[in-house]
Order: sequence, then C-alpha cells, then structure tokens
Amino acid sequence: MEMLPRLSLINSITGFKPANLIGTKSESGDTNLAIFSSVVHLGSDPALLAFIMRPMVGERHTLENILNTGYYTINHINSQIVEKAHFTSADFPRALSEFERCKLTPEYLHGFYAPFVGESKVKIGLSLAETIPIKINNTTMIIGHVEHVVLSGAYQKSDQSLDLIASDTISISGLDTYYRSEKIATFPYAIVGDVPKF
Amino acid sequence: MEMLPRLSLINSITGFKPANLIGTKSESGDTNLAIFSSVVHLGSDPALLAFIMRPMVGERHTLENILNTGYYTINHINSQIVEKAHFTSADFPRALSEFERCKLTPEYLHGFYAPFVGESKVKIGLSLAETIPIKINNTTMIIGHVEHVVLSGAYQKSDQSLDLIASDTISISGLDTYYRSEKIATFPYAIVGDVPKF
Repeated sequence: MEMLPRLSLINSITGFKPANLIGTKSESGDTNLAIFSSVVHLGSDPALLAFIMRPMVGERHTLENILNTGYYTINHINSQIVEKAHFTSADFPRALSEFERCKLTPEYLHGFYAPFVGESKVKIGLSLAETIPIKINNTTMIIGHVEHVVLSGAYQKSDQSLDLIASDTISISGLDTYYRSEKIATFPYAIVGDVPKF
Repeated sequence: MEMLPRLSLINSITGFKPANLIGTKSESGDTNLAIFSSVVHLGSDPALLAFIMRPMVGERHTLENILNTGYYTINHINSQIVEKAHFTSADFPRALSEFERCKLTPEYLHGFYAPFVGESKVKIGLSLAETIPIKINNTTMIIGHVEHVVLSGAYQKSDQSLDLIASDTISISGLDTYYRSEKIATFPYAIVGDVPKF
C-alpha cells in the first residue's frame, strides 16, 4: 500500500483508542499539552500506566519535560474540549504553550509539579517510573506511577471503577475521528463453572 | 485504597480500551482464544502493533503459543459476539479451546498458521517481532508485524482508515463493561497556521 492509506489504515486498525491530554512543565516553567491515543494500563498494584512516544524527530517537548522533571499528568478528553484537544497536535514553538493557544486551563493541584487540565473531568498525576526504548521502530514506552487521581465521586460506580459515560470521556480512531459511547453490556468475572452454555 | 476498589479504578482510569480477541495455535494444534484490552499501535511503517501480557502466573497459553510458533491473530470484537468474547477470559484447561467452549469459529486464511475469528469483521494476522520484558511489574510487551489485514471494503473510509461504526467494533472499560460508539467529530490534520482562534 501507499504510505498515506497505509498510515490511515494501520492507525485505526487496533479499534477504539483512549483520548487523553498529557500535561507537562519544563524546568524553566514553560507548560506543554499534547494529545495522545496510546495510553495503556500496565498494572494496578503498583498502579502503573504507559504510553508510546514516536521517534525523537525534531522537538519533543512532552518527553523532554518528563525526562527533565519526572512528572506529568494524563487528563481525559470530554466532548466539550475535543476540538481544542485535537489542535494541541499542531507543531507549536516551545515558547507558545498549547494551554494558552488552545484556551485550556493549567490547573495546579496537591502541590504537584505538572499542570492538570482544568476542563478535564478525570485527571491523573504521574511520576516517571521508567522509559523503555523500543528499538524496532525507534519509539519509546514511558511508564509512570499513578500519584494522584482527581475526579468527582459522581464519575465512579459503586465498585469505584470509572463511569466513562458520566465523565463524558470520548475515544479516538485513527488520527482524526472522535466518538462518544453508550454502554451495551456488563458481564460478571468469568469463572469456568459459570460460563454460559452458548 | 483497598485492593479490589483500587483494581477497579486503575483498570478503568485510562479511558476507553480497544476490545480484541487474540487467536493462537500451539505446535501440537490446540487452538486458543483470549480477550485483550491492551492492544496499541506502535507504528505504521513498518506496521507494528503491541499488547501487554500480565505476569506469567500459572499457564499463559496465548504467550506460550506465540513464542513457540511465532504467529497470532488480533480480531475486533463486535456487538454480536461480545458475551462469548468476554467469557474467553475464564481459566479453561489447555485441552479445551475457547473457540469450542465459547462457540466462536476458528478460520484459516491465506495459509496463515494462527486461527482468525470467523465472526469478527476486522482480522489481523501478525508475526512475532519482539518481546520486551517490563521488569517493574513483571509484565511483557509483545510486538508483532502486521502480515495480513482481512476486512470488507465496506468497513473502510475513502482514506482507507477503518470505519469502526460500520464494522460494529466495540470498546471496553475496566474489566467488565462494553460500549458501542457514535461519531461526534472529525478534524483536519493540525497545522500551526490553520489552528482555529478559540
């Protein structure tokens, strides 16, 4: 396949992707905000999340800030901020913060170094745990410890899991398409003896 | 937090997750099928996908089959097979294939060693490229080369990206909740000079 159709197909082939904004601040105080669709759950105890950084071509403000300061935030994108969130992906110069250009509010909570996104309803503060180089295509996996989870109890179910409908969290496919969701089913933990007779 | 509420919260904190079934076959011909919510796009050229395996406690048929044979399939879960897909997560003995127990059809295409899921509308055949141990919590990242993408053209948009609504692809949050989606927005590639004035 040609390069562009191949990129479009492979970028969408994994299915729905989570829509998050990663907030950072440089050592000199410049804030940065960038959209990522590759955040993945690594484990709950310790609570670890990972995401994938593309190859270091040109400036990578998010990665530099994380490596230099050790802290970052992951903030759910909701339907009210989807357009602003999308356009954080433009290649703005370092001195122009995406918070300012895209009119999103840097919010400092619990004395945490990195800025949260004020308009986000689910905000996670992380400390850098490890970076793993993925040599096969020169990407990097960034692993962080969850230090803070900031959300209203209205967005949690009785088992403490997140109600992503209540928090108006959206998802992405490919590089440009955004979705809201509706619940179709919940099933019990699968135990061999209790699996339905299909 | 207590262990169970913590597990519930952290498993759902990344947002919507892709819902995929991974199909494998052992060297002796036993098929295996398992649900995964951690598939992530690593790059398009070469086309590489990754997913996370939990720690090797007890038997891990999927990982053993991938390591022993070098091949696996990733198949989108749609609303028609969501219940069957969920219950592949029960801890069935090796001799009982989840394909058979959960009444999903192993499908062999293009001479590929690993079975696809007949009922899935988007099927990907991969060859093992690399496994990366994530020492911090004893998980493993499995990286595969995309060898085949099997789908009807009816599930592709004009730019060749997938139309996840047309393919009835669903998403997951946490460990037990499944969603269908509706599109809310598509935005152009973000170029600094064309970013809207928010």
